[in-house]
Amino acid sequence: MRPSSHHKRQAALAAAERQFLATGYESVTMESIAKESEIAKQTLYSYFGSKRALFLHLITAKTRAASRSVHSPAPRVPAAEARAALRDVLVAQLSAVMTPEILALRRLVIGERMRSPELAEALYEHGPREGISALTKVLADLVSARVLRVPDTERAATQLNWLVMGEPINRAMLLGDAAIPSPAQIRDQVDSALDLFFGAYGQSLVPAGNGDSRHDRPSDG
Amino acid sequence: MRPSSHHKRQAALAAAERQFLATGYESVTMESIAKESEIAKQTLYSYFGSKRALFLHLITAKTRAASRSVHSPAPRVPAAEARAALRDVLVAQLSAVMTPEILALRRLVIGERMRSPELAEALYEHGPREGISALTKVLADLVSARVLRVPDTERAATQLNWLVMGEPINRAMLLGDAAIPSPAQIRDQVDSALDLFFGAYGQSLVPAGNGDSRHDRPSDG
Repeated sequence: MRPSSHHKRQAALAAAERQFLATGYESVTMESIAKESEIAKQTLYSYFGSKRALFLHLITAKTRAASRSVHSPAPRVPAAEARAALRDVLVAQLSAVMTPEILALRRLVIGERMRSPELAEALYEHGPREGISALTKVLADLVSARVLRVPDTERAATQLNWLVMGEPINRAMLLGDAAIPSPAQIRDQVDSALDLFFGAYGQSLVPAGNGDSRHDRPSDG
Repeated sequence: MRPSSHHKRQAALAAAERQFLATGYESVTMESIAKESEIAKQTLYSYFGSKRALFLHLITAKTRAASRSVHSPAPRVPAAEARAALRDVLVAQLSAVMTPEILALRRLVIGERMRSPELAEALYEHGPREGISALTKVLADLVSARVLRVPDTERAATQLNWLVMGEPINRAMLLGDAAIPSPAQIRDQVDSALDLFFGAYGQSLVPAGNGDSRHDRPSDG
C-alpha cells in the first residue's frame, strides 16, 4: 500500500467513526464519509467495498486495539505473584472497554442489531470472545502452576470475565459515560472479583491434603 | 378508570410495543399508535401525555412484569435447602430476562441512549437495579441463617447477578435471539455460578472453627 493511500484510508476511517458515533449507522452514507475525508467516493468504494464493510473494518480495528493489552504473553511468575499478574490483565481489559468510544460503538451495534446483525457479531468476535479466550490461556497457565484449581478453564474464564465486566458494562450501557468507573474504582472492581474467584478456586487458600472435596458440586437431592 | 378506558390504554400500549420493537423508537409517532389501536389521537395524549411518557410507561410495565417472579418473599427454609431456593430465584430472574421482548426492549433503549437517556435509565432502575436489590435481601437472609458468609451483601448480590446474567445477556445482545439459552442451559448456567459463589462464600463448606481467615483479602505487598 502506498503511503498516500494508507493516509487516505485512515482519514476515511476517522471520518466514518466520527459520523457513525454522532448520528448513528443508518444516516451515514459513503457520500458523507467521502465528503468529510476529502476522498473521491469511487476511491472510498475501491478501498472498502461498501458502508457495511467499512463499518466492520472499523469495529475490528477499534476492538482489536482496545483488547491488544490483554494479548500479552501469559505471566511466567512465581505463584505468589500470580494473582497480581492476573489482576493486571483484568484491569487492562476492563480499562480498555470503559472508554467512551468503545462504549458508543457497542451501543450503536446493539441498537442496529435487528437491521445489521453482522455488525454486532463482529463486535462479539473481536471483543468479548477474544477477551475470554485470552483469559482462558492465562488461567490455564495458573492451573498448570498449581495456583488455581478450576474444574473447566474456559467456563471459569467466562465467569471471571463477567464478574469483572458485567456491572460496569451494564451501567455504562444504560447510564452513559458518567457511569464509567475511575481507575481506582476499576482496580477495586477487579480486586473484589478476584477475592471471590480465589476464594473458590485459589489453591493456596486450601490447606494441604484438605482440598480434594471442596469443588465437588453439592448434590441437590 | 372505566373499563373501556382501561381497554383502550392496553390496546394503545400493545400497538406501541409492537411498533417500537418493529421499527425503532424514532420512527413511531403518537399518530401511528393512535391509528393502529383505533383510538383518537387526543385521547392517546390525555392518557400518556407524550410518546416519551408512553414509552417509559411501557418499559416500567414490561420490566416489572418480567422481574415480578423475583420479588417473592425470601426463602424461609432449612440451611440445606437454601442453595436450592437461591437457585430457584436466579433461574426465575435469568428466564425473565431471556425473552425476545425484554431483549428487544433492551437493545432498543441502548441504541437510543444518546438521544433519549431517560429511557435507558428507566430500564436500569426497573430491571437490573430491582433485580440486584431483591437478590441482596435473599442473600442477607442466607447470611442471617449462617448459610453464607459474605463480606458485603449488596456487592455479593451484584457479583452473583452478573456471574449468572453477564454471559447470556451479552450473547443475546450481540448474537440475537438464537443465543437465548434453553431452560436446561439456564439451570446449568445458574448451577455453575452457584458452585463458584458457594465455593467462596458457602459456610457449610468450611470446616467448623477453620473459616475465620478464609475471606481476608490476600495482601498484594
